[in-house]
Amino acid sequence: MILLSVGSSSSSQIAAIFSVTLLLFYFSEATKGAPCPINGLPIVRNISELPQDSYGIPGLTHMTVAGSVLHGMKEVEVWLQTFAPGAATPIHRHSCEEVFVVLKGSGTLYLAETHGSFPGKPVEFPIFANSTLHVPINDAHQVKNTGHEDLQVLVIISRPPIKIFTYDDWFMPHTAARLKFPFYWDEQCFQKSQKDEL
Amino acid sequence: MILLSVGSSSSSQIAAIFSVTLLLFYFSEATKGAPCPINGLPIVRNISELPQDSYGIPGLTHMTVAGSVLHGMKEVEVWLQTFAPGAATPIHRHSCEEVFVVLKGSGTLYLAETHGSFPGKPVEFPIFANSTLHVPINDAHQVKNTGHEDLQVLVIISRPPIKIFTYDDWFMPHTAARLKFPFYWDEQCFQKSQKDEL
Repeated sequence: MILLSVGSSSSSQIAAIFSVTLLLFYFSEATKGAPCPINGLPIVRNISELPQDSYGIPGLTHMTVAGSVLHGMKEVEVWLQTFAPGAATPIHRHSCEEVFVVLKGSGTLYLAETHGSFPGKPVEFPIFANSTLHVPINDAHQVKNTGHEDLQVLVIISRPPIKIFTYDDWFMPHTAARLKFPFYWDEQCFQKSQKDEL
Repeated sequence: MILLSVGSSSSSQIAAIFSVTLLLFYFSEATKGAPCPINGLPIVRNISELPQDSYGIPGLTHMTVAGSVLHGMKEVEVWLQTFAPGAATPIHRHSCEEVFVVLKGSGTLYLAETHGSFPGKPVEFPIFANSTLHVPINDAHQVKNTGHEDLQVLVIISRPPIKIFTYDDWFMPHTAARLKFPFYWDEQCFQKSQKDEL
């Protein structure tokens, strides 16, 4: 807003109108593009205009379509994610339900269904455009783009915000898995006062 | 399986092999196409092969992509729905979160945000391909295809199976709204023993 103070006294009226217009624009843009828009979330939103980021994860583009920390959802959260060829989630588990709808591309779901002291060698499931998959609660898993084009998925989770335990490999003990909470895309807007029971 | 009993004694070995093959095919198809496949749900499923139906609702095509009654989900449920031009949901409310992702077409969300003794005149929100919307818990609403082509949406709800209260119009008292539970697509497979608290 500093730029608005340059109007000379001879054109003060025009400058004032211009300033108010810019001010309104500024606040409207600030609300629309605010990083933590939990208050005043529009009922309908254009997905093309929602912010997306890699959050430092190579080959990932993540967008929170309807989120807990960002938008005040309490029971479900929806993401749109794109994995470049070779890109993958970490090996991880979480105590919530998760459903994927594959919009385009192909890849592999690695799922360790064993219930020992570590995940163990995972079962491989090919995933493909127009497929859906669900990840059983607390089973360690990884989704990887093993194809040659972008893999785009809609992801639905329960019990947001997501609380993820990550593994270095499939044979790391469950007790050594590292909690990442809040997760990368929730970090900026997460408030300690929100429900955070594990 | 009655057809399998026609093998003559002279060709009994061939008939036996044929019978076993058909039997295996029968059971594999029975599992794949079973109306209530809650046991043995494959982790990955081809959406193109999932059953869809109108359930008697004019202009609607509904598919439960990942469901509670059908697939054993406990916290989230995902539908793929297509509304022909002019088709609409009933005016209804439910005590769960709901998120729509509009895949194609356009339409209108009618949402009564008032909290009096009846829904009242709804606010109209245009919805369009690549938009997302959320319906606040217990607000009466209706989604209608007010466009000229099919409206296709992915719908995510919490607390499945869905328990819907329907209204004849926007001025019908909340206390007169009719409970429809289990809802049409859950009727065939719903078991009383499943959680059914309202």
